[in-house]
Amino acid sequence: MHISSLDTPALLVDLDKTEANLDRAANYVRSHGLLLRPHTKTHKSPLIARMQLDRGAAGLTVAKVGEAEVIARDGVPNLLLAYPVWGDAKWHRLVEVAKRLPVTVALDSAEAASGLSRHAQRAGITLGILVEADLGMRRCGLPPGEGLVRLAQAISAMGGLRLEGLMFYPGHINLAAEAGEQQLETLRSELRAVIESFRTSGLPTDVVSGGSTPTLFQSHTIEGITEIRPGTYVFNDRTQVAAGACTWQDCAVTVLVTVVSTPRPDAAVIDGGSKTFTSDPLRPGGDGCFGRVVEMPSARFHKMNEEHGLLDLREHAGPPPRIGQRLRIIPNHVCVTVNMHETARGLRGETVQQSWPVAGRGKLQ
Amino acid sequence: MHISSLDTPALLVDLDKTEANLDRAANYVRSHGLLLRPHTKTHKSPLIARMQLDRGAAGLTVAKVGEAEVIARDGVPNLLLAYPVWGDAKWHRLVEVAKRLPVTVALDSAEAASGLSRHAQRAGITLGILVEADLGMRRCGLPPGEGLVRLAQAISAMGGLRLEGLMFYPGHINLAAEAGEQQLETLRSELRAVIESFRTSGLPTDVVSGGSTPTLFQSHTIEGITEIRPGTYVFNDRTQVAAGACTWQDCAVTVLVTVVSTPRPDAAVIDGGSKTFTSDPLRPGGDGCFGRVVEMPSARFHKMNEEHGLLDLREHAGPPPRIGQRLRIIPNHVCVTVNMHETARGLRGETVQQSWPVAGRGKLQ
Repeated sequence: MHISSLDTPALLVDLDKTEANLDRAANYVRSHGLLLRPHTKTHKSPLIARMQLDRGAAGLTVAKVGEAEVIARDGVPNLLLAYPVWGDAKWHRLVEVAKRLPVTVALDSAEAASGLSRHAQRAGITLGILVEADLGMRRCGLPPGEGLVRLAQAISAMGGLRLEGLMFYPGHINLAAEAGEQQLETLRSELRAVIESFRTSGLPTDVVSGGSTPTLFQSHTIEGITEIRPGTYVFNDRTQVAAGACTWQDCAVTVLVTVVSTPRPDAAVIDGGSKTFTSDPLRPGGDGCFGRVVEMPSARFHKMNEEHGLLDLREHAGPPPRIGQRLRIIPNHVCVTVNMHETARGLRGETVQQSWPVAGRGKLQ
Repeated sequence: MHISSLDTPALLVDLDKTEANLDRAANYVRSHGLLLRPHTKTHKSPLIARMQLDRGAAGLTVAKVGEAEVIARDGVPNLLLAYPVWGDAKWHRLVEVAKRLPVTVALDSAEAASGLSRHAQRAGITLGILVEADLGMRRCGLPPGEGLVRLAQAISAMGGLRLEGLMFYPGHINLAAEAGEQQLETLRSELRAVIESFRTSGLPTDVVSGGSTPTLFQSHTIEGITEIRPGTYVFNDRTQVAAGACTWQDCAVTVLVTVVSTPRPDAAVIDGGSKTFTSDPLRPGGDGCFGRVVEMPSARFHKMNEEHGLLDLREHAGPPPRIGQRLRIIPNHVCVTVNMHETARGLRGETVQQSWPVAGRGKLQ
């Protein structure tokens, strides 16, 4: 089927670009002796997860139990739930998944570990645990220091759990900014200290899990890391280009839209807004635009309502778009955009080679 | 079932508040001789649509053909597709809907009208048409003037279509701002001129469709309006409170979340981020927060990642939240938040009285 047979808005995945993105990361980790446990939040699809595993990924990462249930198909070697999962309902479901394949959970409290311990023991299984350290992200995780070691020690003593090491998320590091290299250097030094404190306390550091897409290819410079968990690298997006992590050519996902109105000479309205793209700004900081129009990059996609996207054409030099014309748009943040679509379309050139459901979409629990 | 039995994040709909919101609007339009054709984009559910019709709504409004297909159940008197729908696939599907109940389409181009005319004639049906005027919103719609009249005249001559009048969307009017009353006065005067131009050209003004939630209760002051199409009024949200359109007590939708981490004394992490709420800012302008925490309104919900919500507790005076504690959050923009959830839970007090699928969720085409 040709792309012109698709109705819009449609989520397009360029399979050649996707494969190139996956190969690049796979080659990188192989050459540096790192493991890759990609975060599936970006694609939410067992089909893409299979492509990652076929290229040597050591396991897969998820954030929610519902995502784990979707992604834990036959042949998946293990899952990391990189989230401090809470509550009997979720612990019960997670243990059911862990009966089928090894599951590791990253967390930052004795309370969460204790709940998992209780459920794991009742089911007669063992869950891997990574203690989450906050190395500057200021989200979850305990800061380096005694509290982190004490938490790890407490977990070591809990039944049904096997402490494997540490997790951190370097999502605050912006290598495109002047401060980026300094942020990275601070992280290196904090991580060294944390690893050292674990070793002197006799705590395991078999797994030291880091990695994000913007820092992916710097991972080998962070001493002690054993694995990385990038997500966005599979598709890339406008924010990754701005971060210097990839080029426009590496952006594998576009949203196909149609111009539905040209009400003023300097404006066109497309049939996708915040319910198609989400309102995520370009990070960090934002530039007031919601995507890059591939066919007319000087058109500013500057405003959205739920189903309307507004293109400002004042800086667009070529012929103005016609009603009915189709455009392809690279989103600001591909992870949240993919999550808005029921179906993804895999392309080779302009041929739709296959379609698949975004199976993990909306799995909030 | 008690609310405590729900896992999180969960979309909660307070049915008492919803009914009060619906009653208030129904009483208002009745007392002013206006018709109400509510926009179902907010709830995307036949069940809530039924509640609107039971209170006297004259019809329902949708933006997408997929929404029309979901909402066009038995007993729905008519649908307004308030969107310049484009393309053979959608025109075909819309005509199928129009075989079952009267459908009117709002549009702003002869191209879109022509496509609908062709499909309607082929099917032997008639579609109602409203011409969309831009009275300051600067989205779709032609500005007042000859172009608008000429478009209406062209549509009058097309087979399969019945021109019914005009539509406009006053979404730019912010009555909470100093300029609000002047914006409204400009709109009144422009609408008078447009209606006059239609009448002197012998064009129908049987339907003059306006209305948004923030301007809902001003509709009777806009001469010539015959119907309004508010959407958000059914649930309300943080933006509507900021606009002065309602109070916190009128906000019927909250998202139930769980505190999953308290990594620093001044921070708590909840299990909902941009994939639960979306990143829509408070409009207009934004205040850097993503919702109001009902139980601790001085906690600032100031940061989100996809599955993490960050609460800044520095201004929170009461006891700090515990891991496992549940909170309810009023979102910035309820329409996009509802669209992130597969299921809605209807509450009476703290009892979950019924659950329903958000059936129109993700119907992008």
